[in-house]
Amino acid sequence: MKSEIRQNKATKQWVIYAPARRKRPKDFQKTRKEMITPPERDENCPFCPGNEQMLPQVITEIRDRSSWRVRVVPNKFPALTPGGSKERFSRGLYVAMQGYGHHEVVIETPLHNRQPAKMSVREIGAFIDVYHRRYTDLLKKNENMMILIFRNHGMRAGTSLIHPHSQLIATGMVPHHIRWREETAQLYFDEWGRCVYCDILTHEQEERKRIIDENSSFTAFVPFAAEVPFEIWIMPKRHKADFGDISNREKTHLASCLKLVLERLHDTLNDPDYNYIINTSAQYRAREPQLHWYLQIRPRLMTFAGFEIGSGISINPSLPEEDAAFLRQE
Amino acid sequence: MKSEIRQNKATKQWVIYAPARRKRPKDFQKTRKEMITPPERDENCPFCPGNEQMLPQVITEIRDRSSWRVRVVPNKFPALTPGGSKERFSRGLYVAMQGYGHHEVVIETPLHNRQPAKMSVREIGAFIDVYHRRYTDLLKKNENMMILIFRNHGMRAGTSLIHPHSQLIATGMVPHHIRWREETAQLYFDEWGRCVYCDILTHEQEERKRIIDENSSFTAFVPFAAEVPFEIWIMPKRHKADFGDISNREKTHLASCLKLVLERLHDTLNDPDYNYIINTSAQYRAREPQLHWYLQIRPRLMTFAGFEIGSGISINPSLPEEDAAFLRQE
Repeated sequence: MKSEIRQNKATKQWVIYAPARRKRPKDFQKTRKEMITPPERDENCPFCPGNEQMLPQVITEIRDRSSWRVRVVPNKFPALTPGGSKERFSRGLYVAMQGYGHHEVVIETPLHNRQPAKMSVREIGAFIDVYHRRYTDLLKKNENMMILIFRNHGMRAGTSLIHPHSQLIATGMVPHHIRWREETAQLYFDEWGRCVYCDILTHEQEERKRIIDENSSFTAFVPFAAEVPFEIWIMPKRHKADFGDISNREKTHLASCLKLVLERLHDTLNDPDYNYIINTSAQYRAREPQLHWYLQIRPRLMTFAGFEIGSGISINPSLPEEDAAFLRQE
Repeated sequence: MKSEIRQNKATKQWVIYAPARRKRPKDFQKTRKEMITPPERDENCPFCPGNEQMLPQVITEIRDRSSWRVRVVPNKFPALTPGGSKERFSRGLYVAMQGYGHHEVVIETPLHNRQPAKMSVREIGAFIDVYHRRYTDLLKKNENMMILIFRNHGMRAGTSLIHPHSQLIATGMVPHHIRWREETAQLYFDEWGRCVYCDILTHEQEERKRIIDENSSFTAFVPFAAEVPFEIWIMPKRHKADFGDISNREKTHLASCLKLVLERLHDTLNDPDYNYIINTSAQYRAREPQLHWYLQIRPRLMTFAGFEIGSGISINPSLPEEDAAFLRQE
């Protein structure tokens, strides 16, 4: 089979599927030796109960009878900090600004070793609820132009902290990467009068080849032009630009879908490292008809090299239809 | 010190400099244990002399008396292959095309363990000359819309082959990543009537804070908004959009600049993994006044995580002025 190049309908990104470089799913599996089993509590972990003196402060928490269940704290090594100005200034030829923003950590559970892949739907629902609270709170400040909620799992995904946690960063500007997604969706909307993400969802539901899981509120699928092996999008069926518009019922349904997908990844690929990101509208764009929020999971099974950095084109050795079938455990 | 956010003048990319996450240059150094010393010849290496039966074919080579010095071969596991069509076709809602392209390997030396950081200027000049030959040859085909020359050094940069080599990929389409660079430069040109890269070069030469090396044809500097620690741009002083326009004299001067920079990286950071890329104009854009080719080196000392993937904003713990001073060995 010759290689094929596919275009992501929503971002116009090209991805090369290279059969000569193809690996079987089990070639991506971690070896048993690489799988670590941490203890339930680590006395050196700042996120474990009893180590509160290592934390700068607690921003908010959800409690359950005697103990906390989910907690939000400021990042101890923040990339951005509140206060200061978000005005741009000149540095000779260049443009710069102070490091305005918010950088918070969502501690998802008091248990040091309880990864979401093995949590109950209720536990996952609890930290999704906390995402939502912090998101809507921070979005009330007009200067928070963009809020990104993300999760890094494992060393290859950029974290050395084992204790289950997500992060939230609010910035005072909207980067090109986000503007480009918005513009591409708008061009599609102006041409077809429909949301490109809704059309993708309809198409995937008809074709069914790349779907992994579905409930009445969400569909989880490997996108047609997945940039990396086992990339997954969890997309709400209800057309909404803004993650802030998620309903309580949808939070539970998202938790259920996320649990299934993370558990499948964990069980079939031996706990792969991954990042997930909630892609949502920037400030002031929440009411626009062309955008549609979704959660994107990117397992870290490959290393991007010079070609990817220089061209923005990914080379994916793994075919989305086969990845989806593997995750469905067919 | 609070963190600072800088914008790349040429790409509009934002980069966060986070002092709370700052590392000293020596924190990036490999340990001695990680530094491997491979043999001069490896009997299992397809690029070593005498193992020609492992190669698909030799496309071209430079010879010196009795032996070859630089050789170009097809990639044995190509991402793209010549032949076939570069027509787009529909797949339901989506767009796809056959994997048309060229994927070649430039074997830079017959010696298995002779990295460019330790080569003579003449040896580096020889493989730059071969880059140039293959580049101009492949650009003669109108269907090669973009040609990317790149080098992956080390496991973290995406290669497991030790034998010194670069790669060249020609594609039948121009991705958004490249179009965006072109458009940003054009907007600047339309506003100021000048090339943004020429203006950057002039500014850097005046300020001198980020320059590492300079000769009559090239300037090597850490860009103002470097996305990763020790990122380096080697930029020709002569305004040309197209790498194909490099003169013989410039090839020698590029070799001399590249040698110095790679040797400094090797000696001060203990042979860090890196990618380099030659950023040049796409097909049909070579004559446009706003573009300017350059060689970009990206050491792989950090792991991009969810925030970088979701926002396209880098978090760089290392300040460009300090990186440049460190590489100048002040």
